[in-house]
Amino acid sequence: MRVVVPFAAEQPKTRLDGFLTAAERREFADAMLADVLAAIRESGHEPELLATAPIDRNVPTIVDERPLTAAVNAILETDSPVAIVMADLPLATPAALARLFEASEDVVLAPGRGGGTNALVARHPDFRVDYHGTSFLDHREGARRVGASVGTVDSFRLATDIDEQMDLAELLVHGEGTARAWLDRAGVRLVRDEGRVGVERTENG
Amino acid sequence: MRVVVPFAAEQPKTRLDGFLTAAERREFADAMLADVLAAIRESGHEPELLATAPIDRNVPTIVDERPLTAAVNAILETDSPVAIVMADLPLATPAALARLFEASEDVVLAPGRGGGTNALVARHPDFRVDYHGTSFLDHREGARRVGASVGTVDSFRLATDIDEQMDLAELLVHGEGTARAWLDRAGVRLVRDEGRVGVERTENG
Repeated sequence: MRVVVPFAAEQPKTRLDGFLTAAERREFADAMLADVLAAIRESGHEPELLATAPIDRNVPTIVDERPLTAAVNAILETDSPVAIVMADLPLATPAALARLFEASEDVVLAPGRGGGTNALVARHPDFRVDYHGTSFLDHREGARRVGASVGTVDSFRLATDIDEQMDLAELLVHGEGTARAWLDRAGVRLVRDEGRVGVERTENG
Repeated sequence: MRVVVPFAAEQPKTRLDGFLTAAERREFADAMLADVLAAIRESGHEPELLATAPIDRNVPTIVDERPLTAAVNAILETDSPVAIVMADLPLATPAALARLFEASEDVVLAPGRGGGTNALVARHPDFRVDYHGTSFLDHREGARRVGASVGTVDSFRLATDIDEQMDLAELLVHGEGTARAWLDRAGVRLVRDEGRVGVERTENG
């Protein structure tokens, strides 16, 4: 099965501005991507990148500068199964990905927090994505509309996309890979408050 | 295996004040508890309540007015396996709970977002909880300290405790039980923004 990882090569992780510089956001996005690619390989699949601009990652890369939804839908125009795995899932494990890849339904969705879809497998030629809005609900409805069976993968690790400063705490609590090491080097540390934990920056890495 | 559900009977879900009245928060907490109890029963276990005050739920109930950590640790003073499942997990499914209950390690942790521990199984007589701070890390370290093997359950549904207004969106996207129905009746609806979804209240149920 093709496993395709969309990657915003040019201005990644804009919602982390204010906490990380533009150059740091690129480094951090690269580190998260490295973790995702490694987890996919360990799950027994060979990842491909779907990048908005040419990048040099030693991975087969499709360059498509269109917005995410259009670029992914071009990939889905096939009769073969395709997996789409977001690049900002540094907590993804081979085991969690295997649950996704091995589920048997025509369309398998790994929900992200806040109604998103962080990873999916499409085995139905008519299924298309729309990443705007509450994409999990839209994808479930869209799959049913084309007559595809729908499954979900109940994974905290796949649900945890890293977009905002508070998300970094999840990576510091649960991460063990390249992106976690990048945060450590950048001096990003957990702050334990009354409620959920947050992060602070104790030095300028 | 005993499956114990701690429940703050008197002032539940204080972080939802401003969005729900005190009476509504009690109703909503009751609805979430009903979902959790039902999921535990469907997983093949008979739940017990650990309540801060006497309540009438037709469930075996231990009343212990001490703070959560002390009350749970009193339950853990046993040589028998015990599961502790939080009452604010209305997305918990029998399948997710079965993965928790059937894991084989001495201590099995289901992480909550923000470093919490939303459910656990303790099979080691010396393991104790501490729900303050980043309890997931503390529990993992505490288990290792007493020589217990540690497992985790990778479940988005068990990771999703409902504490704050934004958490309600998860319940509206993924919930199908009593608590979801309560939100519908109260006029709580998804709002789809640019980023992750939120909720608004369109009527006063």
